[in-house]
Order: sequence, then structure tokens, then C-alpha cells
Amino acid sequence: MAHTLGELAALLGGKLQGPPDLVIQGIASLDRATPRDITFIAQKRYARLAAQSRAAAFIVGPDQAQLERPLIIVGHPYLAYARIAALFAPPRNRWPGVSHLAFLGQEVELGQEVSIAPLVFIGDGVRLGDRVTIMPGCVLGDRVQIGGDSFLHPNVTILERCTVGQRVIVHSGAVIGADGFGFVPGKEGHQKIPQLGTVVIEDDVEIGANCAIDRGALGETRVGRGVKMDNLVHLAHNVVVGDNSLLVAQVGVAGSTKIGKGVALGGQVGLVGHIELGDGVQVGAQSGVNRSVPSGQTVSGYPARPHQEWVQIMGHLPKLPEMYKRLKELEKKLTELAAKLPEEAGE
Amino acid sequence: MAHTLGELAALLGGKLQGPPDLVIQGIASLDRATPRDITFIAQKRYARLAAQSRAAAFIVGPDQAQLERPLIIVGHPYLAYARIAALFAPPRNRWPGVSHLAFLGQEVELGQEVSIAPLVFIGDGVRLGDRVTIMPGCVLGDRVQIGGDSFLHPNVTILERCTVGQRVIVHSGAVIGADGFGFVPGKEGHQKIPQLGTVVIEDDVEIGANCAIDRGALGETRVGRGVKMDNLVHLAHNVVVGDNSLLVAQVGVAGSTKIGKGVALGGQVGLVGHIELGDGVQVGAQSGVNRSVPSGQTVSGYPARPHQEWVQIMGHLPKLPEMYKRLKELEKKLTELAAKLPEEAGE
Amino acid sequence: MAHTLGELAALLGGKLQGPPDLVIQGIASLDRATPRDITFIAQKRYARLAAQSRAAAFIVGPDQAQLERPLIIVGHPYLAYARIAALFAPPRNRWPGVSHLAFLGQEVELGQEVSIAPLVFIGDGVRLGDRVTIMPGCVLGDRVQIGGDSFLHPNVTILERCTVGQRVIVHSGAVIGADGFGFVPGKEGHQKIPQLGTVVIEDDVEIGANCAIDRGALGETRVGRGVKMDNLVHLAHNVVVGDNSLLVAQVGVAGSTKIGKGVALGGQVGLVGHIELGDGVQVGAQSGVNRSVPSGQTVSGYPARPHQEWVQIMGHLPKLPEMYKRLKELEKKLTELAAKLPEEAGE
Repeated sequence: MAHTLGELAALLGGKLQGPPDLVIQGIASLDRATPRDITFIAQKRYARLAAQSRAAAFIVGPDQAQLERPLIIVGHPYLAYARIAALFAPPRNRWPGVSHLAFLGQEVELGQEVSIAPLVFIGDGVRLGDRVTIMPGCVLGDRVQIGGDSFLHPNVTILERCTVGQRVIVHSGAVIGADGFGFVPGKEGHQKIPQLGTVVIEDDVEIGANCAIDRGALGETRVGRGVKMDNLVHLAHNVVVGDNSLLVAQVGVAGSTKIGKGVALGGQVGLVGHIELGDGVQVGAQSGVNRSVPSGQTVSGYPARPHQEWVQIMGHLPKLPEMYKRLKELEKKLTELAAKLPEEAGE
Repeated sequence: MAHTLGELAALLGGKLQGPPDLVIQGIASLDRATPRDITFIAQKRYARLAAQSRAAAFIVGPDQAQLERPLIIVGHPYLAYARIAALFAPPRNRWPGVSHLAFLGQEVELGQEVSIAPLVFIGDGVRLGDRVTIMPGCVLGDRVQIGGDSFLHPNVTILERCTVGQRVIVHSGAVIGADGFGFVPGKEGHQKIPQLGTVVIEDDVEIGANCAIDRGALGETRVGRGVKMDNLVHLAHNVVVGDNSLLVAQVGVAGSTKIGKGVALGGQVGLVGHIELGDGVQVGAQSGVNRSVPSGQTVSGYPARPHQEWVQIMGHLPKLPEMYKRLKELEKKLTELAAKLPEEAGE
Repeated sequence: MAHTLGELAALLGGKLQGPPDLVIQGIASLDRATPRDITFIAQKRYARLAAQSRAAAFIVGPDQAQLERPLIIVGHPYLAYARIAALFAPPRNRWPGVSHLAFLGQEVELGQEVSIAPLVFIGDGVRLGDRVTIMPGCVLGDRVQIGGDSFLHPNVTILERCTVGQRVIVHSGAVIGADGFGFVPGKEGHQKIPQLGTVVIEDDVEIGANCAIDRGALGETRVGRGVKMDNLVHLAHNVVVGDNSLLVAQVGVAGSTKIGKGVALGGQVGLVGHIELGDGVQVGAQSGVNRSVPSGQTVSGYPARPHQEWVQIMGHLPKLPEMYKRLKELEKKLTELAAKLPEEAGE
């Protein structure tokens, strides 16, 4: 898996500043790189670490071109890092074909070069596209459909009738299509509302470990194209997530809430049900959003409000004890002052 | 699975207003219903959507009887929806009998019509009631007991000696009976306290995907009859949840806390250990409850307090920066005013 | 599994006050103990429950020596309880050897007395130390290494190349080594950064049910010796947790954050990425930590600040509505007062 520095520069379309035949065997962070590795400087604040780095070469932006080490100069070093990382990624072992230790139901349709590992359960009427990979311990309910080149890590569960697009990655322990949380409350107990809908995961989505995405009560729960979800995220029934949104770990979204395109939800954010977040909305970590947010707005806090307002409020919060003291002091002084004034007639 | 409108009206005990022989093939939401579907209006605010709906017929309350469409008029449209949804729910495929690709330990007792799918592990001495369903990937530890008509979705884990009642539904990825988090802290490391207890899940409980319910340290962790838990909920050792309580997604309850009957905990709520929530307590989403709450109270916030108080405080929070400014202004004015007063002798 | 009170006293090195030949058959809490059980009083406030307890005997500290019941008097009753609980813990059933219903890849190296249950998947090049136990439904990726005496509960997933130390306990549903959440954002979608690193779990760690610990982007995510993690905890890529730290349920730690030794994070705490918590830091439940915290400090709140400050602020928060009222009142009074003053020339 070794490459020369010249090859890497050509691949990245970058400017080479150093020996083209230098052999690079891996990529590593500035502090951990060995003389066999290339590294990268994606943020200026890390540039000071370059001098001590043992790396053989550096991927840098034009602002670091003065660095006296072998360099590949590119417009977007972080993107270049992603591409080189892909180059050095160890190949994944896929099961060659369909293991005879997997269980397949009836009328299963498999594309070309599908990989189904041992100890996998595939229900009736499941359809898998070309080059789909199903790792051990996965369970696919009846009539699940998965598009080409998707990859299910071990112990993923996809319940009946849910559909997954192409090039989707689902990490271990994720559950897609469990029943939504729907009950008619009553004094004699809560009556279950059968959850008849499904989940639709569009193309190029990535779903983190131990996420839970519920099926629609009626209709669908939908995760739009290119959405990336971190670990332990909860999506309730009939939630819609717009294309290319990012949901950081432990986010929870209540039922029927609609999230626009290109939205970013910080870690542990909670959204109440039946609201809408417009395109490009950003929500700060741990915020609780209890009403709709217009497109482009950044909100924070609990309950969430425009980020700058929240920052202002939080900046004043520590002054509260002192404010209380000063308020009492003022009241006392004012009383004293009033007492000094001559009594007026008529009062 | 088609039914006539007359059949549905009879089933619901509702008043039919329209053609009894109209054929209904499914149920759908107002906006997604086709002319083959019945739909429902459970909340007045959705009534305005009725005109555009393509639905063949509507389940409505008496307040919507004027709607000039085929109607079934009932006292509780939401409950009627739940019942009709059950009617149209696609039948679940259960494995017919015990798969020879499942592993069963010794002295396992099975009721009638038990369904055990492939790739299931059943430990020694497990007892399953009539019509229990165990889907693929489930693991039941030694001496687990499950009551009749309970349904374990794929990849559920129930650890040794835990018991589950009748008609319980456990969603995928849930773990019942892992060790509680119990250690004796020490300078040389934390000594594990063996967790000797169990978990008891009573009848008619539903447990969401990827929940984690720990066994008691000594004695039990207990989830009362009719409790419904959403996804990713954590119950620590020796927690007790009273009958018919609702725990929304991502709730966390620390050790030995006792939750009364008919309690509702909003999403992402956290409860500290060793407190008691009385019957009928309601806790707003994301709240942190750090002391016991008497029956019937609604609390919110962090730390949680009576809901109306919290709303009042949150309403004033945005005024904090302005208050600070006004306070400073007052101080300045008061100083100026004091300066205008004639100096008094003796001060 | 019965023991005499004398045996237990000798084991604990405690002072026996009662009949040495009293037979003890189990350990239970004060309120649930039967005349066959020993119980313990670890906190003074529970001492009042002793009179009603049906327990055969009590483990107590020197301050309870006056109790007129069979006693074992020890310096640290809670630790003594942990040791007696270990004595009475029911033996765990381990699979004797390697089940022929488990799947083992190529070049797997097994230590002595390894237990591999049915329905386990072990990838190529995996190495398991002596007496390792792998329960049903577990999946170990290629080249995973696990040290001696470690125990994987059912349905655990450990992805390729991750390493686990000795005497580690991993609870059901935990996922170790899923991809970190790394993307280069772009208008045409987010480009995945391949996650090349691994996870290293050191000796004596315990990991709760349904935790998710991501592999490093480059380099490692590392969980130090003796760390104990409760359920549903999320560790992002390249997080480092120092020795003997405690992470309570539903904690989330963002990427590259470094947690010192002996740190305690309360339930549902969130830590942003790229910060450092010094040794011995304590963080209150539900806090959000957005900057580094020096060693030894206790912080709380959102954003987290020194605990005493936070308590003070929270103590004043309920006064906010009243403060606002008093502030307005003051303004009014001041205006009135100013009006009473004689007009000054030049103003």
C-alpha cells in the first residue's frame, strides 16, 4: 500500500515541494506520524506542531508553503486528508458471496456480488442491490429493500418493509423500523396504536452505532440523501430529515418533526414533536428546541432561542447573585434617601 | 383486508353518515390518504385539511358532523383510529414453531404455539408461555421466564433469571438485566459489587429499541404493568416504575429511584437516584429532577421545579441583560440624586 | 452456597459479635432480607431500619456495635458487602469450550479454557487470552485481541483491529470500534473521512449495555485501566479516558477530548470536543462542559462552571421574576423622588 510523494501530489492535484520518489506508507496525525507517514495541517493553530513532527511529508495549504519539509500544497488540506486516508484505509474483509451459515427466507432477490456473512437472518421477499454487504448478526425483516453498495455492519436490525438506498452505511447495533411510540392514553392503560408505516433511508446516508429510527405510524419516517447521523440518535415516527443534514451523537427528535436540508444538530439536542426546522438551521449542543425555527437561523439553549441572545443571557447569568445583592442595596439606599427629603403636604 | 364503511362503523359503535357499502382498503393520514383509504380527524386544528383530503371516508367526533363527506362519527376519534389501524395492520410473520437453527439449552419449557426463529439462543431452564414469539438474534439467559403472547423483536437480550410478563413487547436492541453500575470506589481502583438481583417486567409493558434496564444489585428492578418505554431509555439497578407510566425516549433514571403510577417523563429527562416521584407526576422534556416530587405535580427545568414557576423564570431569563443595564443605570441615577441633596450634619 | 457467620467474619477480617455457627444462605437489603440472609448498614441513615429487618445478621461499622443482633463489625461495611455479594453470586454458566455452532475465521488464536458460545462470529486473526468468555450473538471483527479473563455478554460487537485488555467486562449491545463521525462538509454533500484508527480498552474496564465507543480517525480512542462506564455512553473518535474514571449513564464525549484519571462524569453529561479534563475532575449530572477544566475541580451546569458558583446562580434563578418586579418598582420610586427635588439651575 506504499505510494510515492509524487503519486500522492498527482492524485490530489497539488503542488509538490520535495522529492517525488519519497515513499509514503501511511497517514497519521502530526504528533503520531513516523518517518514512514505523511501528515497534514488543516488548521493554522496546529502549524506550530509541525517542527516537532517526525512525519516524512506534509499536506498543507498555501499559507504553510514556507515550511522547510517535503510538502504537497493544496487548496483544501482537510479534504486532501480525507482522500489520502481513503487510499491508505485497510481493505475490508467481505464474505465472498452468501454464507451457508446465513439464513435466507423465500423469494429473496440478490444483486451481483452481494456479501452475506454467517449468522445473518434475511426475511421473505428481501431485495438487496449489487455489492451490498451484510455483516454477521444482522437481521433483515420481510420485504426489506437495500440499494447497491450499501454496507451493514454487524448486529444491525432493519425491520419489515423498510427501505435503504444506495451507498448507505449502517453501524452496529442500529435499529431501523421499530414501532413508533404511539398510544391512546386511558385510565385503564394505554392502548397501542399499531404502527403501520415504514422507514425510508435515502442514498449516501450514514447511521451511527446504536441509533434507533422508528417507522411511521402511518406513512413514513424519512432520512434524506446524504444525511449523517452519529451514535445513539433517536428519530421518532414520521420524522423527516432533509438532505445532507448532520445529527451529532445522542440527538433525540420527537414525532412528526420536519428537519430541513443542511441542518446541523449538536450533541444531545432534543426537538419536540410537530415542529419544523428550516434549511440550514444550526442548533447548539444540548439545546432543547420547542418551536419551529426559520431557515438559516442558529439557535441554542433551553428552550432554544437565537444563538446570540442565548450567549448574552448566559453571559449575564453568573451576575445574578451579585445583581440580587445590588438590587437590595439600592432599595435600602432609596429608602434612606426618601427619608431625608422634606415631607410634602398632601402626601 | 378490505372492509366496508358499514362494517367499520359497526365495529367502532359509531354513527354512519354515508354509504354503508363503500369499500375501504386501508387507513392513512389526512394528507396521504387515497380514495381507497379511510382517515381521521383527532384534533380540531386538522379539520381545515379535510377539504383537500382525497380520503374515501373520515372518522370524526360529533363536532365535525357537518363535514359533507362519508363519515363515521364516534366519541373518541383517536381511539377509533387505533382500533382501525389494528384492523389494517399487516399480519406479522412468525416462525412456525421452533427453528432447528435456534439453539435451545437444557430443561427449556415451551408453551403452546411458541415461535422461535433461527439464530436465537435460549439458555438452560428458560420458560416461555403460550404464543410467545422470539425473533432472530435474540439471546435469553439461563432461567429467563416470559409470559404468554409476549413478542421479542430481533436482537433483544434478556439476561439470566429476569422475568417478563404477558403481552409484553420488546423492541430490537433492548437489553434487560445487564449488571447495575455498582462499585466501591477506592484509590487502587473501583471494586465491582456483584449484581445479584433481577429485572421483573410486568404484563402489557412495551420497551423501546436499544433500551437498557439493569438488574437489581440485590432484589429487583421492576417495570410495572402497562408501562410504555420509548427508545434508548436507561433504568439503573433497583429502579421501580409504577403501572401505566410513560417514559419518552432517552430518559435516564438513576439507581433505586421509585416512579409512581401514571407518571409521564418527557424526552431526555434525567432522575437522580434514591428519590420518589408520586403517582401522576409529569416531568417536562430534558428536565433534571434531583429531589422527590409529590403526587400529581408537574415539574420542569434543571433542577426541576413546579412547572408554572419554571415557565415564569424562563420567561424572565431573556430580560437578564436588559435588567443588568437598568440596574446599573439606577445605581448611577441614585448616586446623582444623593449628590443633589443637602449634606446632613452627623453623616 | 451456605456459610456460617464465623466463616464470613473471618473472610472479612471483621469482629464477630454473635453465634459463629449461624448459617447464612444469602445477602439481601435491610428491608428484603429473610432470616436466612445477612444484610449490611453502609450509611447511618439506614440504621433506623435495622430494628424491623428480619435479617439473620448484620455487617456494620464500629458505630453500630451497640445493635443487639448478630453482627460482623468491619471498618468499611460497603466494601464488605461487595465481598460477601461476590461470595453469594450465582455461578455464571459459561459454554464449555468452543461451540461448534460458533463461526471461527482463519488463524484464530485461543488461550486456555476459552469459552465461545453458539451463534458467535469470530473474524480472521482474532486472539483471545486465557479464560475469555464470549457469549451468544457477539461479533468480533478481524484481528481483534482480547486479554485473559475478559467477559463479553451477549450481542456485543467489537470491530476489526480493536484491542481489549484483561479482566474487562463488556455488557450486551455495546459497540466498540464503529467509525468515528468524520466528514468534510461540502455543498454537494459531506465527504466521509475514512476512520483508520482503533480502540484500545485497557485492563479492568467495565463497559455498560448499549454503549458506543468509536475508533480513532487516525490513532486510537483509549479507555484507561479500571475505567467504569454505565449504559448508553458515547465516546467519539480519539477520546482518551484516564485510569479509574467513572462515566455514568448516557454521557456523551465529543472527538479528541481527553479525560484525566479518577474523573467522575454524572449522568447525561456532554463534553465538547478537543478539551481536557484534569485528574479528579467531577462533573454534575446533565452538565454541558465546553472548555477545559483543571485538575481537581468540580463543575456543574450548562455551560459548566465551578460547582459552588453554579449552585449560587441556580439558587438565585427562582428570584428572577421577583427581581424584575422590584427593579421596575425602584425605577418608579426613583423617578418620583427625583421629581420632588427642587429644579436646579443649569440642568
